[in-house]
Amino acid sequence: MEAVRWEGDAVVYLDQRLLPHDVRYVRAESVDDVERAIATLAVRGAPCIGIFGAYGAALMHATLADDRARAEAVARIRGARPTAVNLAWAVDRVAAAADPLAEAMAIHEEQRALDAAIAHAGAELIPKGARILTHCNTGPIATAAGGTAVGVILAAQRAGKKPRVYVDETRPLLQGARLNTLELQSAGVDTVLQVDGAAAIAMQRQGIDLVIVGADRIARNGDTANKIGTYGLSILAAHHGIPFYVAAPRSTFDFSIAGGDAIPIEERPPQEVTSFREARVAPEGTNVYNPAFDVTPGHLITAFVTECGVVRPPYLESIADLEFRPFVRASQLSGKA
Amino acid sequence: MEAVRWEGDAVVYLDQRLLPHDVRYVRAESVDDVERAIATLAVRGAPCIGIFGAYGAALMHATLADDRARAEAVARIRGARPTAVNLAWAVDRVAAAADPLAEAMAIHEEQRALDAAIAHAGAELIPKGARILTHCNTGPIATAAGGTAVGVILAAQRAGKKPRVYVDETRPLLQGARLNTLELQSAGVDTVLQVDGAAAIAMQRQGIDLVIVGADRIARNGDTANKIGTYGLSILAAHHGIPFYVAAPRSTFDFSIAGGDAIPIEERPPQEVTSFREARVAPEGTNVYNPAFDVTPGHLITAFVTECGVVRPPYLESIADLEFRPFVRASQLSGKA
Repeated sequence: MEAVRWEGDAVVYLDQRLLPHDVRYVRAESVDDVERAIATLAVRGAPCIGIFGAYGAALMHATLADDRARAEAVARIRGARPTAVNLAWAVDRVAAAADPLAEAMAIHEEQRALDAAIAHAGAELIPKGARILTHCNTGPIATAAGGTAVGVILAAQRAGKKPRVYVDETRPLLQGARLNTLELQSAGVDTVLQVDGAAAIAMQRQGIDLVIVGADRIARNGDTANKIGTYGLSILAAHHGIPFYVAAPRSTFDFSIAGGDAIPIEERPPQEVTSFREARVAPEGTNVYNPAFDVTPGHLITAFVTECGVVRPPYLESIADLEFRPFVRASQLSGKA
Repeated sequence: MEAVRWEGDAVVYLDQRLLPHDVRYVRAESVDDVERAIATLAVRGAPCIGIFGAYGAALMHATLADDRARAEAVARIRGARPTAVNLAWAVDRVAAAADPLAEAMAIHEEQRALDAAIAHAGAELIPKGARILTHCNTGPIATAAGGTAVGVILAAQRAGKKPRVYVDETRPLLQGARLNTLELQSAGVDTVLQVDGAAAIAMQRQGIDLVIVGADRIARNGDTANKIGTYGLSILAAHHGIPFYVAAPRSTFDFSIAGGDAIPIEERPPQEVTSFREARVAPEGTNVYNPAFDVTPGHLITAFVTECGVVRPPYLESIADLEFRPFVRASQLSGKA
């Protein structure tokens, strides 16, 4: 399944809210279309949002003649969701480029190479027959390419390591239940779905060897914003002595911030928790705390898996080192992976 | 709302699966009716199951003439769910009684007094304006009386302490979202619903002062089986330095077992996780790990709140002491609470 593609006069996206049942592609032709697709999570996954936003910004450049209207439209796309840094990063790259569409396509092409490099780098962390726990969806659908954390798992499967993957369903929007199951099972991976609350007993009784998740934004000290529930999972992993890995491309690192306190945490509508599709599950008028993300402190993260290799503590040094690596082009990476 | 009541020729129960929308009472007239109501969680909450099972056993005694048929029916009710000890305990009491119906009614009446005594004992643990996190439903609906953990919270509200309660929705069956919200909000308690995965960030950023939950079975060393997700919550509370309390009547303590390893953990049907009402959320054929309970080790529990007062570590001593307290009759307790 292709999460995002360019069609000349529109960005076509897979509406991820309808998976696993309906595979429906939708054309985004206006800034409203692009903004709504991101804000409603029809398009989701930090790298996928970045690529979609990049194409969206290129579309604005192609369709809006007026500079001010164009700038406003691009700013709206850039701000459609606040936490993942990839969106702002990708839109800024496109906005600054001489050929916006070519830049958007380059970002998309790079993601494929980056994901392949991340999968390659992660191989050393996955033992044969590993029991792996993951949270939220980080597969090909989430990056419009090969995937990050799930990309590492898929590579382990291709390498014959036969991992068994415990998938947190990932409330409220069930990206684990709806998307990881689809991607892992179609690749033949031994997959076990569980409620998020079962993670601790799975670590205690199911012999989990490692946790691997994606990220939406990573600070210089390693503090990592990711899907709500990730922070708790990192504490559980530490309690059980299980390594906790974060797989993400360098574009997810925000070298401008020192720590997680500076990462804005998006709060989403209460209906995500109080309703399931049309059915209400909580009484009318129920107050809801619905942060879409939480921040895992760097000291609870065993290592990051990036296209530049595995990044280990001390993060103040290793992430600073990552910042000053030469920018890796897709053409260089494809050989490596 | 009355969770369970005796009607002469039947036990009438509130079908808790349909809350908060439909308040529907159903008559259980046969062993099939009673067993199904427990197994499908139409009747749920460890003390409530005990009371319902007690009335069910009394009904078998009243309606079945044949000793063997009666014993078989009672055994089926006793085994309808394996983890909560209250069910077996209550059914055994009724089966051994000279007047089974009077015994069932005594168990129900005692629960009201026990819950009042638990709420009374818990008062010392709840500061004014406390921010409290709870998991699963432990209110009046769960005990067919005043409630355990939620009973403590309701008493704090009545005492003018104005607690704010963060309610885990409690997947898979959403007892928090469906039942705690209903019970707490109708009592005017400031209630905030969240997904289970938000518990860690709530502890970190919302100033949670304490966690209080119920229990399905407690071993001599304090190991406590409770709704899936409780064990993880206890680790998160310890990590954040937040007290973690378990409120339960003495009938939830299983003095016959030394530790949590001896508690059978019920695994429930995969459909609870893969479907929501009629709608599937995961692909066909998805494997599911769906333990209904987990076991929190005693060393992560700050104290137990029982009708005999607050029980603190070392549990090998304090729980042994609890075992040998004289049995407390409802008539003695009602004055105390």
